[in-house]
Amino acid sequence: MSAPRASKRALQALLDRSAFVAGWGFRVKSVSDEACTVMLPWREELARPGGVVNGPAFMALADCAMWLAIKRRLGIEQDAVTADLYTAFLAAARRETVYCTARILKLGKRLVYGVAECHDARGRLFTHHTITYARIGA
Amino acid sequence: MSAPRASKRALQALLDRSAFVAGWGFRVKSVSDEACTVMLPWREELARPGGVVNGPAFMALADCAMWLAIKRRLGIEQDAVTADLYTAFLAAARRETVYCTARILKLGKRLVYGVAECHDARGRLFTHHTITYARIGA
Amino acid sequence: MSAPRASKRALQALLDRSAFVAGWGFRVKSVSDEACTVMLPWREELARPGGVVNGPAFMALADCAMWLAIKRRLGIEQDAVTADLYTAFLAAARRETVYCTARILKLGKRLVYGVAECHDARGRLFTHHTITYARIGA
Amino acid sequence: MSAPRASKRALQALLDRSAFVAGWGFRVKSVSDEACTVMLPWREELARPGGVVNGPAFMALADCAMWLAIKRRLGIEQDAVTADLYTAFLAAARRETVYCTARILKLGKRLVYGVAECHDARGRLFTHHTITYARIGA
Repeated sequence: MSAPRASKRALQALLDRSAFVAGWGFRVKSVSDEACTVMLPWREELARPGGVVNGPAFMALADCAMWLAIKRRLGIEQDAVTADLYTAFLAAARRETVYCTARILKLGKRLVYGVAECHDARGRLFTHHTITYARIGA
Repeated sequence: MSAPRASKRALQALLDRSAFVAGWGFRVKSVSDEACTVMLPWREELARPGGVVNGPAFMALADCAMWLAIKRRLGIEQDAVTADLYTAFLAAARRETVYCTARILKLGKRLVYGVAECHDARGRLFTHHTITYARIGA
Repeated sequence: MSAPRASKRALQALLDRSAFVAGWGFRVKSVSDEACTVMLPWREELARPGGVVNGPAFMALADCAMWLAIKRRLGIEQDAVTADLYTAFLAAARRETVYCTARILKLGKRLVYGVAECHDARGRLFTHHTITYARIGA
Repeated sequence: MSAPRASKRALQALLDRSAFVAGWGFRVKSVSDEACTVMLPWREELARPGGVVNGPAFMALADCAMWLAIKRRLGIEQDAVTADLYTAFLAAARRETVYCTARILKLGKRLVYGVAECHDARGRLFTHHTITYARIGA
């Protein structure tokens, strides 16, 4: 019932020691029980022809933001894996930092479902995602 | 009508000079008008806790395989960007090479829709994807 | 630029004269530029074994609510057709009226993308949908 | 392990006694362990403006075809409910019978994932669906 809430610091430490996401350079911007926001700072290798952020970068960011939103709620020790992820690409991001805010809509015993949005610093939408995670050990 | 078909060699060269995918180390395995298969060789940084390939790697691979399937049909010069991508994660890949085979189901004037499957060397399914690309300049 | 906003009355009249949705008995509850809410009153034929509302009813309702949200913004005369629709079924509805609230996230020149949520009178979520419509004549 | 395979006749009888699908007039065309094909005969009430089959009809048909594909494999007594359903609308169907062929890609202990395609008698594609069912009692 009352799982220990993971702090922003604990979530950033988790990212830093997770080799599979470390390459992206994600930074936790804010976290609460309602939403988790993660940043992807711009760097040149993210550029698709034309200087826009490549699609997989958004999907990796959304997947990570939801993963942290779940860790926040269930505790760092509890794990879950992505069961499905849908992404709609709405607008291009050009040589700029991308933010992603994930929100859990249903925290079930076996499945967790939520929405993630990638946006700029003022809230303009780049991508919209729906994500289902399956709880491990559930 | 009769666009020049991009060869396997031309598609691999495209990958090699595209910084945004170069980091993954994708290799074109085979290409025809019906399907395009791309490989992601295993390396330790792909590992999620537990030694399984992380989710974004499959999505990046599927996105890339469909991109090349479209380039094959329309020619290297023609470009298209991902409009939406749905991924179902069906089974874990453990410290092994992942293959992804993309097939175009509809090649429209503005939108291209297709399916991609990530699998092992014997065809066992890891992930299943549906992808819509929007043609640029269309 | 300044398309004539369709009124709640005009949208209900559209539903009433559209044979393909008339069978569902949908009622427009409220409409604004931000959101459109449509009701599906309970009736016994909607029941799946166990007395819960069957899945296609939610999808038809979501599709309809987004259609009206678009008509609201573009005017009754402008039409658009569903390009893709994703539905996550989160909780069962039991012998009760279902409400669906649709919101447009991107109103593009060719594609319209938005989110629809089916819920009860107090906001409890039954299903969550993402929907892309393609504008006709665009 | 060796569940009793449901016959075509048993599946049609299931449809006929299920009020929530009976209104559509679905007919089982063929069924095997690999695929299940269900027909939606044309009737005027299916028409969207312009005389094309309305979107929810395809989604209901796909949902039904997958439901029967699962019943075939698990037995009529075992039930499962739709967890998520993605539909891409690729081409319009005009005053004609629509066929839908569903195939299971993963039959898990808790989740079943598959693909359904709506097409005409010669195989031309109208819609493409991915569907996840959750097994009840699992």
